[in-house]
Amino acid sequence: MSENETKIASGYRFAGVHCGLKADGVADLALIVSEAPAVMAATFTRNRFPAAPVVYGRRQLELHTPVRAVLVNAGNANACTGRQGEIDVMTTVEVLASVLKIDRDEIFVSSTGVIGEPFPVTTVLKGIEALAEGIAADTSASSGALEAAARAIMTTDQVPKIAASTVMTSQGPVTVTGIAKGAGMIHPDMATMLAYLLCDVEIGEKEWREMLSRVVDLSFNRISVDGDTSTNDTVLALANGASGCRLESESELAALETGLLEVARQLAYMIVKDGEGATKVVTVRVVGAADRPAAEKVARAVANSALVKTAFFGQDANWGRIVAAVGYAGVEIDSDRVNIDFDQVRVVSNGVRDPRYRESDGAAVLKEAEFVVKIDLNQGDGDFSLLTSDLTHDYISINADYRS
Amino acid sequence: MSENETKIASGYRFAGVHCGLKADGVADLALIVSEAPAVMAATFTRNRFPAAPVVYGRRQLELHTPVRAVLVNAGNANACTGRQGEIDVMTTVEVLASVLKIDRDEIFVSSTGVIGEPFPVTTVLKGIEALAEGIAADTSASSGALEAAARAIMTTDQVPKIAASTVMTSQGPVTVTGIAKGAGMIHPDMATMLAYLLCDVEIGEKEWREMLSRVVDLSFNRISVDGDTSTNDTVLALANGASGCRLESESELAALETGLLEVARQLAYMIVKDGEGATKVVTVRVVGAADRPAAEKVARAVANSALVKTAFFGQDANWGRIVAAVGYAGVEIDSDRVNIDFDQVRVVSNGVRDPRYRESDGAAVLKEAEFVVKIDLNQGDGDFSLLTSDLTHDYISINADYRS
Repeated sequence: MSENETKIASGYRFAGVHCGLKADGVADLALIVSEAPAVMAATFTRNRFPAAPVVYGRRQLELHTPVRAVLVNAGNANACTGRQGEIDVMTTVEVLASVLKIDRDEIFVSSTGVIGEPFPVTTVLKGIEALAEGIAADTSASSGALEAAARAIMTTDQVPKIAASTVMTSQGPVTVTGIAKGAGMIHPDMATMLAYLLCDVEIGEKEWREMLSRVVDLSFNRISVDGDTSTNDTVLALANGASGCRLESESELAALETGLLEVARQLAYMIVKDGEGATKVVTVRVVGAADRPAAEKVARAVANSALVKTAFFGQDANWGRIVAAVGYAGVEIDSDRVNIDFDQVRVVSNGVRDPRYRESDGAAVLKEAEFVVKIDLNQGDGDFSLLTSDLTHDYISINADYRS
Repeated sequence: MSENETKIASGYRFAGVHCGLKADGVADLALIVSEAPAVMAATFTRNRFPAAPVVYGRRQLELHTPVRAVLVNAGNANACTGRQGEIDVMTTVEVLASVLKIDRDEIFVSSTGVIGEPFPVTTVLKGIEALAEGIAADTSASSGALEAAARAIMTTDQVPKIAASTVMTSQGPVTVTGIAKGAGMIHPDMATMLAYLLCDVEIGEKEWREMLSRVVDLSFNRISVDGDTSTNDTVLALANGASGCRLESESELAALETGLLEVARQLAYMIVKDGEGATKVVTVRVVGAADRPAAEKVARAVANSALVKTAFFGQDANWGRIVAAVGYAGVEIDSDRVNIDFDQVRVVSNGVRDPRYRESDGAAVLKEAEFVVKIDLNQGDGDFSLLTSDLTHDYISINADYRS
């Protein structure tokens, strides 16, 4: 989406500045302010080493306090930093509350970057004044300020990730605007990155939280870059009511959910496309499994196989590796009933190479930047799809050199 | 072990020839013959797409027929080849039985190589005469012939893998000689490669099979290169009695088991060391877990993490990635009780960076070709260790180009 097309949900302002966590003057601190207190929903990493801001955010979820400001830093994850890390969160929140003249419970914080380094709280504090000035200057809620915020939360990301959707309701338009970051440590078992979904609808907290839960399950939980689940993953969704539209009918809530899902899926797609070193976006679609959990196990085994992902990079229609991954997924398989298609090309029929399959047809699909691997187990109605990337030389280069 | 040191179990002969499955005249077909019928034990892949020779081998395990010949080809896995693949195994076995003048039930077969290509049975049959001549010529059971067989089963392996151990018993020496192949598709959840453990002891089938099961659990099941479990993995152990030593006392059986384990561990170590593109052998040792399964889950999560393995390659003492992997292993963790050491260097104490830890100390360990990452969860008595390799540019190159 080009910058001048981005629709921005009403009542939000953005800023991104360089405070000194990243080198070379690159922006590393972002602030989102909602003019009105916003209903909050969030999902967090399931990692047993949750970062200090995740611990803080979970508590906030329980407080049910509306949110007015979201502070995100890149460059340091504030993870495995112990009690000092928690104190640093509180200090940051206190200072930001005082500068913005809001209650500290109205502030949500996230961090992303290196794990285990002491959190450079004084560096972050230095950036807060500049952020507040930036917010004050963003009176028109410009897409330039939005992009500045989206850039400030990047780590190994190559591009900022912004998506938006507007839903027409009987009371007028409602907009969802989302930003996200994430390129490595992307694993399907939770929204393994940072994403912020900002909406101007007026909605009850319970409905909003249930809606986010369903949306995350169908978007951020359906992607995988490298199978690693980070300590900091967070999806935050705010609804500040600034559109003046209060949705209550089931059909209008459903329309809103569709819009929210669209934004979440776009961001999830962008994360895979920008996966560390990735050159391909591959949809792994499992159908005909005994049930949905079985389909999910098979899809995840294939999408996380180093050998399969390396074959994608090599543009090698090496379906044997896919079959092998299906076979070790831990699911009962009737191996002689399995069919596999690459896009429209039938590759495997009944567990063996399809007699009409020609290597050149498979190779042509693998040369595409995006394609679908469909695996039909022919056992039942269970299906599951997820997006994955290939495993490349650049992934190794990025992760052998970068500290995350 | 240098060639002239290799001890060879009595009563076995070896041959390796080029039949045409691999290019450039490289050996691709191996034969091991036991002069006397040998008691057989075997473990196979748990992959749900077992290759045709694995299906055949499982049946043989149930027949309890002694084994006199082992035929192994590299270059084609005879996996996902359906009914034709099974017929090809039977044809191969018939021809070999006729050439060697033994019963077809006395022949064990394995294949390794590309999955899903039709098995080139006529090519293999052409090699059988040459193999039989090679066996006839190997009257002295030379280490040269042993190495020729070990080379003929290689795929992406850089070096042949041979190990041996001699146990002194009250009745004289008993020798175990092993060969193995495997460099990719190496996953801990079974012996994900081919290994042949040849012993000249006289032993009951039940004792031999139980012994192999315990040995495999402590050796081949404790390694991981890339987390992929292949369709063809096989560990075969033969005991042909040619030493004239029949062990029955518990202490002598225990001594034999120690010798068998030593050979299995050496081969397992060689497989990790020769892991596709690997530059490091890392022992991941988890102690203090609530129980052994918990320790195993954590060890496997760390050993299979793409980010951790890439950091090893980058010689980056990035303990945050290790902590993150511990955290997503699916085990309850008291994050503030976890300690991590790199060899003798304490890196993490109580879930945070040890106050005395210096980056240069960690970096010095990571520069070594082999080191131990010890993770103490401080919860109980569960422990588990496994060997893993790093994830490198060469892994990508090998697997983007090679068909396995």
